[in-house]
Amino acid sequence: MSENVAEAIQRLRKEVAELHQELTRYGLVVWTAGNISARVPGADLMVIKPSGVSYAELAPELMVVTDLEGRLVTDDWAENVAGLKPSSDTAAHAYVYRHLSAVGGQVHTHSTYATAWAARREPIPCVLTMMGDEFGGEIPVGPFALIGDDSIGRGIVETLAQSHSRAVLMANHGVFTIGADAESAVKTAVMCEEVAKTVHLARQLGEPVPIAQADIDRLFDRYQNVYGQ
Amino acid sequence: MSENVAEAIQRLRKEVAELHQELTRYGLVVWTAGNISARVPGADLMVIKPSGVSYAELAPELMVVTDLEGRLVTDDWAENVAGLKPSSDTAAHAYVYRHLSAVGGQVHTHSTYATAWAARREPIPCVLTMMGDEFGGEIPVGPFALIGDDSIGRGIVETLAQSHSRAVLMANHGVFTIGADAESAVKTAVMCEEVAKTVHLARQLGEPVPIAQADIDRLFDRYQNVYGQ
Amino acid sequence: MSENVAEAIQRLRKEVAELHQELTRYGLVVWTAGNISARVPGADLMVIKPSGVSYAELAPELMVVTDLEGRLVTDDWAENVAGLKPSSDTAAHAYVYRHLSAVGGQVHTHSTYATAWAARREPIPCVLTMMGDEFGGEIPVGPFALIGDDSIGRGIVETLAQSHSRAVLMANHGVFTIGADAESAVKTAVMCEEVAKTVHLARQLGEPVPIAQADIDRLFDRYQNVYGQ
Amino acid sequence: MSENVAEAIQRLRKEVAELHQELTRYGLVVWTAGNISARVPGADLMVIKPSGVSYAELAPELMVVTDLEGRLVTDDWAENVAGLKPSSDTAAHAYVYRHLSAVGGQVHTHSTYATAWAARREPIPCVLTMMGDEFGGEIPVGPFALIGDDSIGRGIVETLAQSHSRAVLMANHGVFTIGADAESAVKTAVMCEEVAKTVHLARQLGEPVPIAQADIDRLFDRYQNVYGQ
Repeated sequence: MSENVAEAIQRLRKEVAELHQELTRYGLVVWTAGNISARVPGADLMVIKPSGVSYAELAPELMVVTDLEGRLVTDDWAENVAGLKPSSDTAAHAYVYRHLSAVGGQVHTHSTYATAWAARREPIPCVLTMMGDEFGGEIPVGPFALIGDDSIGRGIVETLAQSHSRAVLMANHGVFTIGADAESAVKTAVMCEEVAKTVHLARQLGEPVPIAQADIDRLFDRYQNVYGQ
Repeated sequence: MSENVAEAIQRLRKEVAELHQELTRYGLVVWTAGNISARVPGADLMVIKPSGVSYAELAPELMVVTDLEGRLVTDDWAENVAGLKPSSDTAAHAYVYRHLSAVGGQVHTHSTYATAWAARREPIPCVLTMMGDEFGGEIPVGPFALIGDDSIGRGIVETLAQSHSRAVLMANHGVFTIGADAESAVKTAVMCEEVAKTVHLARQLGEPVPIAQADIDRLFDRYQNVYGQ
Repeated sequence: MSENVAEAIQRLRKEVAELHQELTRYGLVVWTAGNISARVPGADLMVIKPSGVSYAELAPELMVVTDLEGRLVTDDWAENVAGLKPSSDTAAHAYVYRHLSAVGGQVHTHSTYATAWAARREPIPCVLTMMGDEFGGEIPVGPFALIGDDSIGRGIVETLAQSHSRAVLMANHGVFTIGADAESAVKTAVMCEEVAKTVHLARQLGEPVPIAQADIDRLFDRYQNVYGQ
Repeated sequence: MSENVAEAIQRLRKEVAELHQELTRYGLVVWTAGNISARVPGADLMVIKPSGVSYAELAPELMVVTDLEGRLVTDDWAENVAGLKPSSDTAAHAYVYRHLSAVGGQVHTHSTYATAWAARREPIPCVLTMMGDEFGGEIPVGPFALIGDDSIGRGIVETLAQSHSRAVLMANHGVFTIGADAESAVKTAVMCEEVAKTVHLARQLGEPVPIAQADIDRLFDRYQNVYGQ
């Protein structure tokens, strides 16, 4: 066990615990119904929220380290608190890390407006410039899948493979987002709920005007390559 | 009077007072319009919010101890503040404790989205996996009942008897939830409002896709038996 | 000038200043768009918010004392800060105090859902037990009236004269509430927005079921005479 | 370089940084998606938010000074932090300052309700007295314009030229507001979202009653000339 991995776990425990506060700050979760994970660089490991623990109680040392099959790591160096189980969505996170090597962080929420689109199994159309920037097109809908095996993870991977979007609405369920790291996946989760709400409101009183695909492409290209510091 | 009951009252006064802060944190109540109670284990007693006291002022010593007919306990050991009346919904809570021995805690709110469903006397259909997890089907509607006798309590008990749900929408009134303890009933109240809002939003722009009953049953069974720590 | 009135002004400056924090806490106001006043017992005077001052800056000494014609009191004992003008809605508050002697406090807001009903000039129907409790029937709509003379005040008084409600929706404008004191008027403003929102939501997906007038009367009578401490 | 300009930059760095907290307080922005600028009096310069920096991190020294072509000022006296880029909306702000000499501050947001109107390219009709006060008529819609050249700035200037409103809904994009100073532009952004929401809600259940143009004119004239301290 190299020291680098141990250090990375330490850093990610803190980072993942703190990022959960963004989920409550932006109102994306209630009670314990949402979770964040991060891949441990240089190891087939991930750090994820413990199951059923409230956001107010989350501390770095309560985060759970698993392998990329979602199995609890029981070695001493993982420093897992005895008896603490990982999130019940761990299998989905693990599947995504195994199949998408560029993904360094993931978020799962049932954020209200996005989940309303998911309940109708309807993608969110790209009618806002900030959707062009962030998602490069519509936010797609993945299949209905029950928890308990790989079907949620597979649905996420297959749906995202056909889209610019790093967010997917899983049918009748909620939102999964991916990113180069956990913070980037959190940003996508925040923006997903924001555009889900804005387009919902726009649609309530009529039809939003579509944006031409060429303009969406220009927005997406510029934002991914030029925006920020 | 055994010391154990006195200790339990002490603990529940604190617990019930603190749980009311969750009702304001999740926006389930305004002014003084909602209340929580807990059954005192080993005694025919309950601890409940005082009537008309604001959530900011609630302190453990202001919680009111009554018997399971809803009568104020006037003995010294109950430590009731002189002249403080229990919640005006005490009769309903008391009725439920008398008739459902497994119930250890209850919550009543007029949380906005759930009460909107109640105003139409329309159950919330089970179109979200988290509804399957938490409620095992639709959230049912109880009868229209006036405050003042046992009719609200009876309506709650009779409606919940025919459902997996631990939440009931009382017609034109609001939400009552039950649980093994007060915290569990608070969680159900929080989840009830969340799904009431999500399904409301889903319905505004079309029809949510139903979930097959067999899948709902699988979700409910798993969540009740496997989820959490 | 009796000391009692001076003491009452002192007390009401503090009370009115603090109650404005409830308006922001419940989200009933943005920027400076809402105000509270209180009648000074034993004098033809009122204490009211200064015009255009933000809620974060409100301090007891900034509250303005006027007579019941809405004129700034310039005597030393009023302790008005030099040059600070009363709320632009002062004339309406003053008219109400002159014509309804039982009113001790008033609130004006443009709270969002209630103002949406006011924009359609549509009363809020009594379809919730908590509306029966608090308002004893529908919340009525007053006339369209421009600021600048007595027409807003007159509209409030004439509309409330025909209703159990202590809240009135002024057409295309916003909400005015009255009470025995300022806190009671604030409670009515909070409950008015809450029921405006709940009934709005109920109506979005169908028709709320009406409550029989006899039941509304029973609820109102009980709540006004029995509820609370 | 006169000392006066240096002092003004100092003051505006602080003012602009602090005003961003109002955007989060009123829920007008998520993540980093909104920005404020102020013109530096007596110089062809402006102070604006840095690109992609979160609101929690904004400090006066991170604000960026540019000229009115949107070019970073590299002189020492500007005290720009090395390598920090101005907001990606800088070109639009700069265009407006060049063409509207009375504008001292600007705000850009994607506030949810206003952006929903923008997605339908539908102006917000003036059906509330507070819209008459603040906007003097409807809030107009500007053209669809891509980021990258002067087309957003030109769309803002041309649209506002034909309106009393100091807010414009840019098609499929969001809100831009102007003011004599940055605080005034922030107030307009707050009021724009508030009326966007209220009129949205009013329209959901029917048609708001229009206000006669003569009454709108009276409200606007009075509010611009008489209101406040």
